[in-house]
Amino acid sequence: MISKGLLKYIRSLQIKKYRVLHQAFTVEGEKSVAELLQADVELETLLATDKFLQKHTHLVKKGFQVQTVTENDLSKAGSMESNNAALAIAKMRPVPDFNWQDNPFVLALDEVRDPGNLGTIIRIADWYGLSSIVLSKSSADFYNQKVIAATMGSFLRITPHYVDLGPFLGKRPQNVPVYGAALEGDNIHKLSLQPQGVLVMGSESHGIGPEVMQLVTQPLHIPGRGKAESLNVGTATAILLDNFFRNA
Amino acid sequence: MISKGLLKYIRSLQIKKYRVLHQAFTVEGEKSVAELLQADVELETLLATDKFLQKHTHLVKKGFQVQTVTENDLSKAGSMESNNAALAIAKMRPVPDFNWQDNPFVLALDEVRDPGNLGTIIRIADWYGLSSIVLSKSSADFYNQKVIAATMGSFLRITPHYVDLGPFLGKRPQNVPVYGAALEGDNIHKLSLQPQGVLVMGSESHGIGPEVMQLVTQPLHIPGRGKAESLNVGTATAILLDNFFRNA
Repeated sequence: MISKGLLKYIRSLQIKKYRVLHQAFTVEGEKSVAELLQADVELETLLATDKFLQKHTHLVKKGFQVQTVTENDLSKAGSMESNNAALAIAKMRPVPDFNWQDNPFVLALDEVRDPGNLGTIIRIADWYGLSSIVLSKSSADFYNQKVIAATMGSFLRITPHYVDLGPFLGKRPQNVPVYGAALEGDNIHKLSLQPQGVLVMGSESHGIGPEVMQLVTQPLHIPGRGKAESLNVGTATAILLDNFFRNA
Repeated sequence: MISKGLLKYIRSLQIKKYRVLHQAFTVEGEKSVAELLQADVELETLLATDKFLQKHTHLVKKGFQVQTVTENDLSKAGSMESNNAALAIAKMRPVPDFNWQDNPFVLALDEVRDPGNLGTIIRIADWYGLSSIVLSKSSADFYNQKVIAATMGSFLRITPHYVDLGPFLGKRPQNVPVYGAALEGDNIHKLSLQPQGVLVMGSESHGIGPEVMQLVTQPLHIPGRGKAESLNVGTATAILLDNFFRNA
């Protein structure tokens, strides 16, 4: 059984204020926790079923508390509907200053508030080999448990940089193009996109905000043929990144 | 206030068995219900706030029951966390037999069980102008309220065909290629794909089943550069469809 105090602490980490206060977050489910145990991340606590611990015994190192729990305990403590494996409390990693030299191609999100969408986008960014992501401060929190779950482990390979997006883009090095997804942009199939510069994705309901839109040097449009008015922001990010990397 | 009987009926429609029994399903939220009211779909009941009814008064025709309700009523009756607009009960449309002549390019799903993923895929199919989708009988139900919500109205323009996928593909016209997403497939960026034939997408956890995989004539791979092991099936469908239609 999980102690009342620990249960309360785990549940508090579902709220951003407490994640920031404790500099900690939760990771749930077999795949994500197994990847976490192999990564360079400091753990506080691992709650896991017997089965998980037996299967991953080689990954369980010293330096953090390990408790065997039931599936029922995990469901009670965590946010997943069912979890038959593990829940870990991990420490946030310090974020180094953003460095333009290390990031020739930057994915920047303007007010992407839906945690599932952000998680999907982090997974796509990882697929295409990016190591950072830039987010407006109004975007969803990287360490939200729904974001972490949707990344399917990719949160371990992407560093989030929360910035004021307008000033951030305003101070970019000279000649760095800013691409932005926009319904009235140029047809991506007619351009030969190269992964250099910044790609800004806006929120699904409001698009890119006016301050940031002013800084976009090349608006991009994904040509459709049907009557759907728009694409989900995760879907659009995937198609655009594929178009940037297909010629690289 | 919504009567107990109606509330019970609406809630029963969250279960497939009752949707099939009544040949009815629910649609929630402003955008989806407004689109529904403009479509050629028979309605049973419209529950809406005063605000929604005033804004969309020109869409509210005779032939179905209309009741003014509060936001609170809508949240209680429906499956959305918040709904400040409307909930409609609509009749399923009859599905005509699948016709290969009308569908030169077919998107087929093998065991895509997650309703959110199916909804996203329907929206993408609509974006690229498809009018049908073929699904294995083990896939999520098209009329599940989470599917309907995720399509953002695209459910009105896509006809679902539930089939036994192996026999269905086995009986396709001669020379129709079957494309399938597979990790060990050919690099899509090196092929010049044309939207003719069938594209099969498998489930995220299990991929395409062995019976269907045997019928795939051209396995396809989306090249990545990072360490993510896979992409979400909605994401992968979007990238593949964009690659099929970019040269068309």
